[in-house]
Amino acid sequence: MALGFLGGTGIEAEGLALRFAAAGAPVILGSRSADRAGEAAAACNAVLGAPLVRGLDNAAMVEASEIVFITVPFEKAVDAVGGIRSLFRPGHVLVDVTVPLVFREGRAEHVEQAGESNSETIARHLPDFVPLVAAFKTIPASALVDLRTVLDCDVFLCGDSHDAKEAVMKTAALIPSLRALDAGPLRTARTLERMAVLAVDLNRRYRKKGARFRIQGV
Amino acid sequence: MALGFLGGTGIEAEGLALRFAAAGAPVILGSRSADRAGEAAAACNAVLGAPLVRGLDNAAMVEASEIVFITVPFEKAVDAVGGIRSLFRPGHVLVDVTVPLVFREGRAEHVEQAGESNSETIARHLPDFVPLVAAFKTIPASALVDLRTVLDCDVFLCGDSHDAKEAVMKTAALIPSLRALDAGPLRTARTLERMAVLAVDLNRRYRKKGARFRIQGV
Repeated sequence: MALGFLGGTGIEAEGLALRFAAAGAPVILGSRSADRAGEAAAACNAVLGAPLVRGLDNAAMVEASEIVFITVPFEKAVDAVGGIRSLFRPGHVLVDVTVPLVFREGRAEHVEQAGESNSETIARHLPDFVPLVAAFKTIPASALVDLRTVLDCDVFLCGDSHDAKEAVMKTAALIPSLRALDAGPLRTARTLERMAVLAVDLNRRYRKKGARFRIQGV
Repeated sequence: MALGFLGGTGIEAEGLALRFAAAGAPVILGSRSADRAGEAAAACNAVLGAPLVRGLDNAAMVEASEIVFITVPFEKAVDAVGGIRSLFRPGHVLVDVTVPLVFREGRAEHVEQAGESNSETIARHLPDFVPLVAAFKTIPASALVDLRTVLDCDVFLCGDSHDAKEAVMKTAALIPSLRALDAGPLRTARTLERMAVLAVDLNRRYRKKGARFRIQGV
């Protein structure tokens, strides 16, 4: 299954693209500009040492992908998904990795959004036949981007479609040293988004970059 | 510093009491009934093989303790703290371990409380001179109670008093194989309470009992 990235020119997309491509998955970075997508793909391929990642404009990326990762900044996600909505077909799965986060007085702060998660907000703007899975929110881009970093952590996935969650869990498990855990229905994204903010805040407090979660006892 | 437990006859108090007493800290279980507190202490001492834990009524427990853990069910915390409020003196530190959680259709669910954490609610009912630290929310009682279990996880502490947080962090670090991490101001309890619910839910989904968090990369 080809993995597409909506907002494929940011560091989170780059990190996931590198990990998935290195694991053998077909990866397509999408951007409003095919040129910028191509440049981002070329940068990934330079790291990988092989032409494993493609760059396309968003419409072509969606056409060619089965699983589409939403890797735009959190506040742009609804608009970005709206821009490709007409291209969705049954079988598409969306994966939301966004984290509602702002920096204030040197601290990472969670952005409250009327009590719901950014994933739930995005899901309300999708056609009924397109399931959304929240995942990878708690894994820092800086840890993903450096392929020498052994992740040794868990990726938490939540969503209301069992089949879509299973598909993304199988895909996530392609990445070595990463364990995929089923975290329940989509509303659990409320927890995962806050955990991501905590990880960023721990990074700042302890002067690290790669804080991420591992569950002991499971 | 003596550690007291408000609601000292539940399993969370028992687990923490065992771990702290085994680490050499003076521990006092409190209850409305001195008899029930004494029975709970005797049960701990039977496990420990030495009379290390005392049981007292709540008032005597507060008088004799410097750090008081709130280990009652989450919805009883405000009333329980109100019942001992007149006994607080400068120097007391409260530690809230409660988790707003219900079980519904076989799933653990977080109880929304007007957007704030149970810790923040409790803090609003305390005298200004009594600092509250949220801690141990994400560590399951079942893992604490069995002293053979190597915890190998992190305890997240948050609070708005730097000195109180430091004192509880030092105390937490008495327990072997437990790392204390500063998780920021008290409002981070919103994150920690949700994480605790996620851990309980993971336990149910994966048929385990001791799910707990460890941060990698810090």
